[in-house]
Amino acid sequence: MKAVGVIVEYNPFHYGHAYHIKKAKEITGAEVVIAAMSGNFLQRGEPALVSKWVRTEMALKGGVDLVFELPYTFAVQKADTFAKGAVSLLDLAGCDAICFGSESGNIDDFYHTYDFLEKHQQNYDQAIRIFLNQGNSYPKALSRAFQSLNPTENIIDLALPNNILGFQYVSVAQKQQLKTKMVTIPRKSANYHDEHFSTAPIASATSIRKALFSLDQPISSIQSYVPESTYELLLHYKKTNGYFHDWNMYWPYIKYSLLQTSPEELRGILEVEEGLENRLHSLAVKCESFTQFMNELKTKRYTWTRLQRILTHILTHTKKKESVLTADKVSYLRLLGMTELGRTYLNRLKKDCPIPIVSKRSSFSHPQITIDTKAARIYAIGLSDPFKQKAIDLEYTQQPIYVRN
Amino acid sequence: MKAVGVIVEYNPFHYGHAYHIKKAKEITGAEVVIAAMSGNFLQRGEPALVSKWVRTEMALKGGVDLVFELPYTFAVQKADTFAKGAVSLLDLAGCDAICFGSESGNIDDFYHTYDFLEKHQQNYDQAIRIFLNQGNSYPKALSRAFQSLNPTENIIDLALPNNILGFQYVSVAQKQQLKTKMVTIPRKSANYHDEHFSTAPIASATSIRKALFSLDQPISSIQSYVPESTYELLLHYKKTNGYFHDWNMYWPYIKYSLLQTSPEELRGILEVEEGLENRLHSLAVKCESFTQFMNELKTKRYTWTRLQRILTHILTHTKKKESVLTADKVSYLRLLGMTELGRTYLNRLKKDCPIPIVSKRSSFSHPQITIDTKAARIYAIGLSDPFKQKAIDLEYTQQPIYVRN
Repeated sequence: MKAVGVIVEYNPFHYGHAYHIKKAKEITGAEVVIAAMSGNFLQRGEPALVSKWVRTEMALKGGVDLVFELPYTFAVQKADTFAKGAVSLLDLAGCDAICFGSESGNIDDFYHTYDFLEKHQQNYDQAIRIFLNQGNSYPKALSRAFQSLNPTENIIDLALPNNILGFQYVSVAQKQQLKTKMVTIPRKSANYHDEHFSTAPIASATSIRKALFSLDQPISSIQSYVPESTYELLLHYKKTNGYFHDWNMYWPYIKYSLLQTSPEELRGILEVEEGLENRLHSLAVKCESFTQFMNELKTKRYTWTRLQRILTHILTHTKKKESVLTADKVSYLRLLGMTELGRTYLNRLKKDCPIPIVSKRSSFSHPQITIDTKAARIYAIGLSDPFKQKAIDLEYTQQPIYVRN
Repeated sequence: MKAVGVIVEYNPFHYGHAYHIKKAKEITGAEVVIAAMSGNFLQRGEPALVSKWVRTEMALKGGVDLVFELPYTFAVQKADTFAKGAVSLLDLAGCDAICFGSESGNIDDFYHTYDFLEKHQQNYDQAIRIFLNQGNSYPKALSRAFQSLNPTENIIDLALPNNILGFQYVSVAQKQQLKTKMVTIPRKSANYHDEHFSTAPIASATSIRKALFSLDQPISSIQSYVPESTYELLLHYKKTNGYFHDWNMYWPYIKYSLLQTSPEELRGILEVEEGLENRLHSLAVKCESFTQFMNELKTKRYTWTRLQRILTHILTHTKKKESVLTADKVSYLRLLGMTELGRTYLNRLKKDCPIPIVSKRSSFSHPQITIDTKAARIYAIGLSDPFKQKAIDLEYTQQPIYVRN
């Protein structure tokens, strides 16, 4: 059975994702689609709208056959670590190919770019250091350093968000000399960061989330941009829990965590750089809301995304030390859900998968999964009602979601 | 100017306290009354009903002339450490005498008891170990060990809560050979733990708090047991902030803190004994409320008070290491408030006080006061409204309260 892997967050699943799955199968001729999906906290340092279990159900109903959780230690990280985790996971899950969307849409250009950078490695590294020292954020420094090399034709634009991620995927595959083939498709219609709906049935997840949190728009305003199954699951979540998750929910805990933790301890938290700990602390004392806090914390040196990730690590109390210990390699495949076809594939995979496949949390332990469980529980306390918290903290009770095709 | 010291929490100030102050002056002939008062968290491991500033105002309007904050590292501790801090503080503040209420009411009996235990020290220590090994709580082991020595007449009953505290005060004064004279008065009417009002105008603080949190009783039901000034201050606090502080307010943060902290780190928290960390963690996952949590956590080995103190340390993230570093001795006198007479006394004290007198937080730093400020800020977040939180976090803005006699 031929399988294609996709690297996803589905926050929430929409028609753009459905298109991606369809195209991935078409191009690669795969029967089975396997997703490496972030858990409750996402790469851009945000709580997901709804829990990983609900997003898994969206995925399975939207065309994915197997969903594995990308561990927190890879998922809530900058692009290179995220890519390392996701690509390795899909490779270990036996994918013949990995298909990603990009602004470029041309896989050869990704390889050309990889070779080009390999060739100019020294100059590139030096230029990055210079731009970082000038106070640029890391992505900005990368992008400027890249431009300074005067890239020729057939080179992708590394200032675009999906090209950046895709380039990291390709780099991992090249460096690790994986057999898994890399495939890209051009992203359709919506741009990643679009805040407003386009006229096409494909809207960005950003614009969908914006509508979901809008006080002026009914939930039904997103109905034409997501499959019926996604829409029903979102409706049900809101009805049951009262809220979609966002940073505002966690602000009291962020604030508390910052008040409780000494600056010395804060320096030990993942991604917190020297000098930031005192600002984090004094702004926690001063600020009344997440938005005010972020606006006052933001400087040229740190991207918004980076700061959000830092706050996620503070919220989950994830330390540099832990991350070094655990983000080394993908050591297990945590199954979140499967279709009938996915199950058949899984039964074959089990025979020669080099790492354990975890479908029951209680029968497996590993430092990475400990962090995932902690993150899931802290995600749950965003809901203030303790009974609702319990109902979404499913770490030890939820069987993998099963959807019959 | 002769001064008498009192060791207090005033949660809230009531007629029993007013009686204590009056008697303390009468017996000792002192002009000035100085209080060593716990801050926002109390010896029994509870958040105070209202902030230390409001309780300071109650004290000054009720007859105290100077209020100094007993640092958290002494205040939220078992009786011996609490006593060490409070007695040393009052001694350093130049008190000629310290007057405490006790069930015994006879100071000579306290000295007899001290001598008796000195004489039987070895047997006493041995008996304590035996009773602890039998799984008794620390206070229970002390009390049983004491009984096992067959105390003679003129010995106080060390099973009674105010005798226990008083005995610790006397022990500190004896061990440190302080010049400060120890004086005791019999407690009037209400017993420490009484939950119901007696007919006299003196009711226990416990029964007053119970009435304040009762859904059936109006606040006015406490009016005959507290001075008008206390009553007005309580009314105003409730009206401004919506709540009196209790453990339920902090339960979401306790739960979060336990989820966020690994069992290894929990073992580093003050008073957490080996073996408790895993129960704390699993009960945090399981329980929906503070009451349920405490009921499930309680065993014969730990008193309710001890467990509450542990939770206070978890809430404030106070570590064993910090406490060892900081609870050594009283190193400053933090002024919370004064009357006119108190100010006159203070001006004289300043001339020969061996430690700094702190009336402005921003101009002083010390590891103990860092913990006090942290505790005050965490106390404030019990109020969910961020603007109200700010209005009671007065660490850097509040001048010492001044009350004209």
